[in-house]
Amino acid sequence: MSAQIVSNHYGKSDVRLTKVVRRGAHHELFEFSVDVQLIGDFAASYTAGDNRKIVATDSMKNMVYVLAKENDFNSPEAFAILLAEHFPRTYEQVSGTIVTVRQTSWSRIALDGKPHDHAFVSGGAELHTATATVAGRGAMPAVTGGVSDLLVLKTTNSAFRDFVTDRYRTLKDTDDRIFATSVTATWDYLSVAITDFVAAHDRIRNAMLRVFATHMSYAVQETMHEMGKAALDAASEIHRISLRLPNKHRIPFNLQPFGLENNNEIFVWTDEPFGDISVELNREA
Amino acid sequence: MSAQIVSNHYGKSDVRLTKVVRRGAHHELFEFSVDVQLIGDFAASYTAGDNRKIVATDSMKNMVYVLAKENDFNSPEAFAILLAEHFPRTYEQVSGTIVTVRQTSWSRIALDGKPHDHAFVSGGAELHTATATVAGRGAMPAVTGGVSDLLVLKTTNSAFRDFVTDRYRTLKDTDDRIFATSVTATWDYLSVAITDFVAAHDRIRNAMLRVFATHMSYAVQETMHEMGKAALDAASEIHRISLRLPNKHRIPFNLQPFGLENNNEIFVWTDEPFGDISVELNREA
Amino acid sequence: MSAQIVSNHYGKSDVRLTKVVRRGAHHELFEFSVDVQLIGDFAASYTAGDNRKIVATDSMKNMVYVLAKENDFNSPEAFAILLAEHFPRTYEQVSGTIVTVRQTSWSRIALDGKPHDHAFVSGGAELHTATATVAGRGAMPAVTGGVSDLLVLKTTNSAFRDFVTDRYRTLKDTDDRIFATSVTATWDYLSVAITDFVAAHDRIRNAMLRVFATHMSYAVQETMHEMGKAALDAASEIHRISLRLPNKHRIPFNLQPFGLENNNEIFVWTDEPFGDISVELNREA
Amino acid sequence: MSAQIVSNHYGKSDVRLTKVVRRGAHHELFEFSVDVQLIGDFAASYTAGDNRKIVATDSMKNMVYVLAKENDFNSPEAFAILLAEHFPRTYEQVSGTIVTVRQTSWSRIALDGKPHDHAFVSGGAELHTATATVAGRGAMPAVTGGVSDLLVLKTTNSAFRDFVTDRYRTLKDTDDRIFATSVTATWDYLSVAITDFVAAHDRIRNAMLRVFATHMSYAVQETMHEMGKAALDAASEIHRISLRLPNKHRIPFNLQPFGLENNNEIFVWTDEPFGDISVELNREA
Repeated sequence: MSAQIVSNHYGKSDVRLTKVVRRGAHHELFEFSVDVQLIGDFAASYTAGDNRKIVATDSMKNMVYVLAKENDFNSPEAFAILLAEHFPRTYEQVSGTIVTVRQTSWSRIALDGKPHDHAFVSGGAELHTATATVAGRGAMPAVTGGVSDLLVLKTTNSAFRDFVTDRYRTLKDTDDRIFATSVTATWDYLSVAITDFVAAHDRIRNAMLRVFATHMSYAVQETMHEMGKAALDAASEIHRISLRLPNKHRIPFNLQPFGLENNNEIFVWTDEPFGDISVELNREA
Repeated sequence: MSAQIVSNHYGKSDVRLTKVVRRGAHHELFEFSVDVQLIGDFAASYTAGDNRKIVATDSMKNMVYVLAKENDFNSPEAFAILLAEHFPRTYEQVSGTIVTVRQTSWSRIALDGKPHDHAFVSGGAELHTATATVAGRGAMPAVTGGVSDLLVLKTTNSAFRDFVTDRYRTLKDTDDRIFATSVTATWDYLSVAITDFVAAHDRIRNAMLRVFATHMSYAVQETMHEMGKAALDAASEIHRISLRLPNKHRIPFNLQPFGLENNNEIFVWTDEPFGDISVELNREA
Repeated sequence: MSAQIVSNHYGKSDVRLTKVVRRGAHHELFEFSVDVQLIGDFAASYTAGDNRKIVATDSMKNMVYVLAKENDFNSPEAFAILLAEHFPRTYEQVSGTIVTVRQTSWSRIALDGKPHDHAFVSGGAELHTATATVAGRGAMPAVTGGVSDLLVLKTTNSAFRDFVTDRYRTLKDTDDRIFATSVTATWDYLSVAITDFVAAHDRIRNAMLRVFATHMSYAVQETMHEMGKAALDAASEIHRISLRLPNKHRIPFNLQPFGLENNNEIFVWTDEPFGDISVELNREA
Repeated sequence: MSAQIVSNHYGKSDVRLTKVVRRGAHHELFEFSVDVQLIGDFAASYTAGDNRKIVATDSMKNMVYVLAKENDFNSPEAFAILLAEHFPRTYEQVSGTIVTVRQTSWSRIALDGKPHDHAFVSGGAELHTATATVAGRGAMPAVTGGVSDLLVLKTTNSAFRDFVTDRYRTLKDTDDRIFATSVTATWDYLSVAITDFVAAHDRIRNAMLRVFATHMSYAVQETMHEMGKAALDAASEIHRISLRLPNKHRIPFNLQPFGLENNNEIFVWTDEPFGDISVELNREA
């Protein structure tokens, strides 16, 4: 009996880059975690331990830092693109490259209402994500932007009612519940030639936040559909968006045993189990 | 402008089930984390907040516990199958179900060399994973088994040499290094009618461990290819296997500044960055 | 041979409370994780399994929710105090109570520059912490406020030089490095009768951030000493402060092998190992 | 106004050491995470940024690796002792040193029933912990051993009844419940001159496991008291033990709404909230 390789790929993950760009006293800070995956003519390493076509993952790590030094960029998308184009250009055995960049969120510390030039405070767990995929030498990169771990909560204007009633249902209809979720979204840019990925990202993020805050929600599904539509409306640069909204349940605590009424005031916040809702939207022709 | 739903699915994730089966004084313990995802006729919830076809994720949670009560099973695969078959049978709006079960590892506490009847100690972070996918009412489930977070380390018989040398290479050839990795593997069963998923799982796991321990490794790629082949050899019940082996680097600490030689003795253990190597193998016809 | 109980205590940890206070359309949101520990006459439970004086930890959990319903509070300090006073007042076997509250950070979503009435976005990993300790029935609570996981970074105005030079030193003097840390601080309030713990907390936090941003640092030790002094200056309500500042190293990446100079631009961000620096300051008489 | 330093200390935490000791083909593997904290004459660094007496935490990190190379040891206790003695001996400004070592658990892979010479599989999350404290130059170290994250579960022989009944109680008496906990224990050795810390550790760990498995538990408090007594009995080398046993609740799932009875079979496993029970025992004179 024998075995056949259906597919293989390899790379380096979680390469942690900090870059400081100094414009006089005003400093820009970029903190990225970078993953690189290569597809190509690597079968001999798998079948025979022959590494002559293998670019060491340690060398990939070096490239992240070298390319960060040698190039200007102002977004994770731009850095993902330049890395993804680098590999097939440099190594002819590489037929495909996927580069993912996760940018940590930092805000300038505000003193007397003024953002500081070089001191920052964490912007939280939210990540600005970007992926660039290059099919091979000379191919145009496909670019995806995104956000993950964008944790939001609204205390009202969320209902959930009239769903399937059967043996397995114990949840009651509600017209007013807390809606908490940690948004993960990715969207496909129409072109690599976007002049300002950061501005597009901010427009999309703000559009999603506005819908979350203001939309009367009858289902997580409905809200995320509205958020996706608002994102497509806000950014003509993108043509597709995927959203995943875990329902981070706030469960009303039963105060009846204590002779008290819970008027939608007192809840248990939970991590699990969680509702796990996804949708993918295309801009309609 | 408008938007079109390309795809949607939803469900409940991380439903945490403990089941104790008592055979007299001898107790069996199952601890699972379960994810359910449904595909089907749910668009009205997304587009109009109309939930009449929506099975609440809270109801899904209930089903996990109810089905655990009403059914016998002795593996995560068996439980995944019965849950995956339940949904399209019960709800005609469901056209596809994916159920993933992660089983926590528990070993019986050994007293005087004898495994205890009802006392257990954690078997570590390793998970026995299973996924059952049912395309629709009456369709046969596709079943995938697997292991994740199987952390292994060997202190010798691992080399890495003769890889690409160029501007970006700083890593030296080595004939003897530590090889540490956290194996994630998934394999496809030929049929749902396996009589003993646990036995097949153990044969596959042991075959992979044997290769890891005894194989002279010239590349992580080569070792994982051998592990995959051994798994296919060990279990005629499976026809495909995917492996992902992060290279959890142990980096020799430079003792030269202190007038000492590091004869492959003293290392820094690291979590990141990590080499990230994948392969998928089919049984050859 | 026999054993003597030196000390014992027990309680419930990580009780997760969400409280929504509605002032018309404007909603206040509190999310706490609460720990309760009791000291008292509990030895019989340890030595003989006699639980007649044991308040179940499940009952403690209930009390968190009941007291949250029955009382108004606007800070984790206030909630810690009312819980800590509740136990010795209610159970005569209780001689000491320690309640710790960790408040999750939420900010109102801003739409068109206006904070929203009921929609929030995560303020990040930073926690507002509070501990109230009551020695026994009728005793005044001791109250500690604090912050944890306040992650800050400055790209310049940090030096580290002229430290001990010997066989074990390989680090060079530097006049300009990145300084990143995750501040944990706790401070003791002079009295339980503080009218506004939130205002005091914010003054202390802002004073520490201002020092971090503006101080020319010659050592993490020096900066944290200045931060502590500024906190004491900013809040006459407190008389003691403890700070712990892990040094979350950003390590310059060596670009020399690639023929490049690293002008303090390109770094590796790391989690471990970390410098781990602590100080405790008292207001001088 | 001014501030006074009450206390200060600093050091390096989470220094990650791997050491391989080769006895022919048979290899010993040690993986440690090491924390060092120094107390001493360091105030000038805090008050004036004067680092002349500061041993850089980076130098401490170097010492961990250098001392691991230059010394033989076969337990985390032995390594903690040699590190703790090193600092006051080397630096006269050091008046106190606390070294904590956490050893990761590795088991040899068994092939055909035989433990392998150089291939290992993770022993899980459990850590073997050790702390050595040296008061100053020439002082004898105080040594503490311990275990953390020792996760155990028993499916029966655990009751909890006859506890306080009042307004806040909703939990029913039970004569049969699941008891799951993650044991953290630390114990004080009588002397630094223990010949075999590993054997003592194993005796203590096994004694605690035996009690956990075989003891009819009427309270977590009672079980941990018995475990502590058994540990003191099993190891004349120790004179004090502290235990902390979080109650990792398995909560019976309510099957009544589905017309089913839950005969202690079906549970929800939870991480929080958790009962949090502690005791400290001394050997009686």
